[in-house]
Amino acid sequence: MSTSVASRSLSYVADVEHDIRVPVTEISLDDSPGGEPNAPVQVYRTAGAGSDPLVGLPRLRAEWIEARGDTESYAGRERTLLDDGRAAVRRGSASEEWLGERPVPRRGREGRRVTQMHYARRGLITPEMRFVALREGCDVELVRSEIAAGRAILPNNINHPESEPMIIGKAFLVKINANIGNSAVTSSIAEEVDKLQWATQWGADTVMDLSTGDDIHTTREWIIRNSPVPIGTVPIYQALEKVDGQAHKLTWEIFRDTVIEQCEQGVDYMTIHAGVLLRYVPLTADRVTGIVSRGGSIMAGWCLAHHQENFLYTHFDELCEIFARYDVAFSLGDGLRPGSVADANDAAQFAELDTLAELTARAWEYDVQVMVEGPGHVPFHLVRENVERQQELCKGAPFYTLGPLVTDVAPGYDHITSAIGATEIARYGTAMLCYVTPKEHLGLPNKDDVKTGVITYKIAAHAADLAKGHPGAQERDDALSKARFEFRWRDQFALSLDPDTAEAFHDETLPAEPAKTAHFCSMCGPKFCSMRISQDIRKEFGSAADQTTIAAREGMQEKSREFRATGAQVYLPTPAVR
Amino acid sequence: MSTSVASRSLSYVADVEHDIRVPVTEISLDDSPGGEPNAPVQVYRTAGAGSDPLVGLPRLRAEWIEARGDTESYAGRERTLLDDGRAAVRRGSASEEWLGERPVPRRGREGRRVTQMHYARRGLITPEMRFVALREGCDVELVRSEIAAGRAILPNNINHPESEPMIIGKAFLVKINANIGNSAVTSSIAEEVDKLQWATQWGADTVMDLSTGDDIHTTREWIIRNSPVPIGTVPIYQALEKVDGQAHKLTWEIFRDTVIEQCEQGVDYMTIHAGVLLRYVPLTADRVTGIVSRGGSIMAGWCLAHHQENFLYTHFDELCEIFARYDVAFSLGDGLRPGSVADANDAAQFAELDTLAELTARAWEYDVQVMVEGPGHVPFHLVRENVERQQELCKGAPFYTLGPLVTDVAPGYDHITSAIGATEIARYGTAMLCYVTPKEHLGLPNKDDVKTGVITYKIAAHAADLAKGHPGAQERDDALSKARFEFRWRDQFALSLDPDTAEAFHDETLPAEPAKTAHFCSMCGPKFCSMRISQDIRKEFGSAADQTTIAAREGMQEKSREFRATGAQVYLPTPAVR
Repeated sequence: MSTSVASRSLSYVADVEHDIRVPVTEISLDDSPGGEPNAPVQVYRTAGAGSDPLVGLPRLRAEWIEARGDTESYAGRERTLLDDGRAAVRRGSASEEWLGERPVPRRGREGRRVTQMHYARRGLITPEMRFVALREGCDVELVRSEIAAGRAILPNNINHPESEPMIIGKAFLVKINANIGNSAVTSSIAEEVDKLQWATQWGADTVMDLSTGDDIHTTREWIIRNSPVPIGTVPIYQALEKVDGQAHKLTWEIFRDTVIEQCEQGVDYMTIHAGVLLRYVPLTADRVTGIVSRGGSIMAGWCLAHHQENFLYTHFDELCEIFARYDVAFSLGDGLRPGSVADANDAAQFAELDTLAELTARAWEYDVQVMVEGPGHVPFHLVRENVERQQELCKGAPFYTLGPLVTDVAPGYDHITSAIGATEIARYGTAMLCYVTPKEHLGLPNKDDVKTGVITYKIAAHAADLAKGHPGAQERDDALSKARFEFRWRDQFALSLDPDTAEAFHDETLPAEPAKTAHFCSMCGPKFCSMRISQDIRKEFGSAADQTTIAAREGMQEKSREFRATGAQVYLPTPAVR
Repeated sequence: MSTSVASRSLSYVADVEHDIRVPVTEISLDDSPGGEPNAPVQVYRTAGAGSDPLVGLPRLRAEWIEARGDTESYAGRERTLLDDGRAAVRRGSASEEWLGERPVPRRGREGRRVTQMHYARRGLITPEMRFVALREGCDVELVRSEIAAGRAILPNNINHPESEPMIIGKAFLVKINANIGNSAVTSSIAEEVDKLQWATQWGADTVMDLSTGDDIHTTREWIIRNSPVPIGTVPIYQALEKVDGQAHKLTWEIFRDTVIEQCEQGVDYMTIHAGVLLRYVPLTADRVTGIVSRGGSIMAGWCLAHHQENFLYTHFDELCEIFARYDVAFSLGDGLRPGSVADANDAAQFAELDTLAELTARAWEYDVQVMVEGPGHVPFHLVRENVERQQELCKGAPFYTLGPLVTDVAPGYDHITSAIGATEIARYGTAMLCYVTPKEHLGLPNKDDVKTGVITYKIAAHAADLAKGHPGAQERDDALSKARFEFRWRDQFALSLDPDTAEAFHDETLPAEPAKTAHFCSMCGPKFCSMRISQDIRKEFGSAADQTTIAAREGMQEKSREFRATGAQVYLPTPAVR
C-alpha cells in the first residue's frame, strides 16, 4: 500500500436521531510546519463498505422499504435460459451462476406508486432522502422539494436494497456514470464485477451495465448484488439478444418481459429510446455520421422495417405504470444524438429532444422519476445551448450527457476531448456525466481504461462544482494546495483524486523516502524552489490580512535590512540532492 | 511502422512567385465504399523536414535576412565556461560540446530595428510573412496588419535562421508550446534534443528550453541548431546559475550579459518577469500558495533583499533596444500568477497584469514584438475574465497561458485539468497555450509525458479553433468522421492526432488485419452495429437534402415494403468474429 493511501479511511457521518449513517472517506493530514494541526478532510464516498463478490452486499434499505407498507413480495417472472442468450440455451446454463442469495422480488401493491417522487410530492421525507441530505451536506427539505419538482432523481429500485441512496440533480454535486459490460467479442462475469468495484472505488456514482454478449441476466445479477451505487441498463440490448439480433423481430411483448425481468432484479434506471420517432429517421440521412446510438439505430431499424411508430413511444404509459411499481427511473435515451461535430445541434437531435420533453411530462403524471440523456459530439461553442434548451423544454428534469466530445480528431484521447465538453455542459446545469474512456470509438475499456475514465470525469464534475460555486466544493482544493505549498507530500498524495498515480509519478524522479518530506521538489531541485521562496516572503511579511499595501511598503526598507542581516537566504543553503 | 502512419507523408504548399515552400503533412485516404475517391487532407506540420542532431538543420531564412541589408555579422560575446554552469568550470568543458557548425552571430546595424513588427509597420511584406500566410491559408495582408498592430507576433530571431516562420495571434490557428530542459536533479543533452524532435513531431508550435542544471549554454546550442520551431527561454534561470543560485547576487549586468549570450545563439522569445514590482510582493503574503512562478519568486527575492525595484523593470528600455537588434520577442512573464484556484484573479495577479500592459506599450515603441503570459490555476467560471481583461489592457497583444488548471485536486492528471481551462481561455482569444504534462507538480516529464502533453494541448487548441469557427478547422474532423462512418479504419487512424495510439487501442480488442477493413468494430461486434444501421437507413432514403420530412414520410410506406422484401437485414447477416 502506498504511504498516501494509508491515511485514507472509511468513516461515517451520522444522523443519530434517524439512525442513518453515511459512509465517507476520511483523509487525515499531518501538522503544518510549525506544528499547527490540519483538520481531516472528509470526501464523498461511492465505494460503499466493500463486499465479497460471491456473497454480495447487505441490504441497507430493506427495512425502510418494508416499513412503508406499500409493497409486496411475489413469485416474480419465471426465469428462462434465453434471459442469458442463445449460448446459454445451447449450453443449458449461464457460464457462472450467481450462487449468493437471490432476493424474492417486491413490487408496489396494486395501484400504489412506490417512487421517491411520489413520496416527495406528498411531502413525505423518506430515510433515502435523509441519507442523501447527509451525504450532500444539505437540508433534507432541499432534497425533497427538488425530487418533488422533478429537478432531481433518487434512483433506487426497491429490488436493489443494497444500494446507497444518492441524488442526481443540478442543485447537488455533479455525478458521473461509468459504463461496463461485456460484448459479443469479449466476455467474463468476474471481470465485469471487478470493473464495477474498481469504478466505484475511484468515484463512479452510478454504473451502467451495457452487456450485449452472453450471460446478460446472470452478469447483471452479480453486478446488482454487489453494487453500492445505482445500476442502469439499456433493456433493448437484452431484448435484441432474445430475437437473435434481428431488430425487426422485436415486439413490445418481448421488450416488456425484459423490462419486468430487469425491474425484478433491481435495475435502478433504464435507458428507453422512446423519442426516436418514425418521422425523425429521415432527418438523419444527410448527416456525416447518421445514427450512432445503438438503441437509436435499433429502434430506427424497427420503425423502417414495420413502418410503424416506435413501440416504446406508443407503449410509454404502460412503461410508466411498471416503473412506478418498482421505483425505476427513466433515462430517456437520445437515440438521435450527433456522432460528429458536423451533426451537432441539428434538426434530428432537437426534434427528438422535443419528444423527450413530452415524455418527461408524461412520466411525471405517474410520479415516475426521469432524467434525459444528451450528446455526444458537440463543438465547444454549441455545448451550452444543449443544456439550456433541455432544461427549458424538460422543465428542469436532470440532464445526463455523454461528454460531449468537442472534436472528432483524437481517437485514443476521447476521455479528454469529452471531459472538456463535460465540464462546460455541467457548469450550465447538467446533473450527471457519462464517462468516456480512452478506448471510445476503438475498443472495449479494460480496467485501466475504466479508472482513467472515472478519474477524468471526477475532474470534469468537480471542476463544474467549483464553477457553480457549490458549497464546500473548494475545501479539498484548498487543503491540497496548502499541503503542496507546505511540502507535505504525503498529504498532497492522499488528497488527490488518484493518490497512487500522484505518488508513483513523484517517485519516478525522486524515489527516496526522505524526498517525501523534503522542502523542495524534483522540478527545480533543492536550491531553486519558488514555493520555498514564497514561504520566506510570508515569514518576512507575516500575513498581509491586517496590513495595507501602503503599510507594507513603508515597512519594507526595514524588512530588507533584517532580511540581509539574517543572511539573505531565500534558498535552502545546502544542496541535499545532486 | 503502423499501417496508418504509412499514409502520412511530407508534402509542400508552394508560393511559386516568391519561391516559398511550406512543409505540410499530407494524409492520403482510401476510396469510400462504392468507389468515390476521398481527397487527401493536408494538415499543419511543425516537425520541419527532419534533421541529423549532430549536424542541425539547413538555414532556411539566412538569405532572406541578409537580403534585407539591415544586419551585420560580428565577433559576438566571448563564451565563458560559466555559461555552462559551475560544473563545467570545474571540469573545464561542457559535457557534450556542440560539434556542428556554429554560425557567426548577426545583429541589426547600429540604430536599426530588424523586427518583423518594424517591417510590418512600414508596410513591408517579408518572406517570413508570406511563409506564414501560406501556412495559415490566409491573406498575407492579414499577417502583416496583425503584426503591425501588435495583435500577432512572428518570433524568429535572426540568429535562428533554421526556424520555419509561424505566427502567434488570435486571428490565426491557436498554437501550443512544449517545455523541455534539464534540472539540477536530472540531465542529458541528447535526451533534451530527442524531446525537442519528439515534441515537434507531435505538433508543438514552439518549444521552451527551461534548463536549470548543468550545460545550459551547450544544451541550448544543440536545441536551437536542430529546431524548426521558435525556441523560448527564461534567461533569469541561467543568470541565477551564474551567481551560484543566490538570487540576491543577481545584477543587471549579469542578466544583460546572459540575454546577449542567448540573443546571439538564436533564442526567439524570452520570458522576462519585469512585472513583479517591489510593491506587489506583499500582496502575495496571504495567498494559499504565495508565488509559484520560479522567475517571479527569484525577482521577488531580489527585490526584498535589496529593497529596490525589480531591475528588469528599471532596465526595460535597454532590453527593448537589445531585442530590436535581434528580433527577439518578449514573453512578459506573469511572475505572480495564481498557483491554486483559491488565489485566482486576485489583487497580486491583476496588479502585475496592469504593469505588463504598460510594458507592452513600451516595447511597441521600439517595434519589439510582445506576448503576455497568463495563469496558472483558475476555476472554470473565472477563466474568461483573464483573457478578456488581458486583451483589453494590453490592446490585443497575444496572450500565452499555462493551462489554466481548473482544479487543484488531480496531480498526475494536470494535463487534463489544464486542457479544460486551456480550451475555454483559447476560445475567448488566447493565442498560444503552454502545455502541462501529467508530471506537473510531481516530477520532470519523460518522453511519454511530453507526447501526452502535446497531444492533449493539440486537442485544446483545435477544439478552440472549432469553437472560434476558424476557417477550415473542421475539415479534419469531418474527414475523420466520414472515415469512421464508412469503416475506413486505416483512414481514421491516419487522420487522428495520434495514429499510433488509435491503431494500438483498436488492435488490443481486434488485432487481426481483416478487422481493419471490417464493417463493424469491437464495441458492438459484427451483428450489432449502429453505424452499419445508419448506412442502411441512408441507402433506403438516399440523401435527405432534396426531400422534405413530409415527403419522406409519404415515401416511407413503400420503402418499408421494399426493405422487408429484401430481407429486412439491418445487421450483417453472419457473425465473422466470435
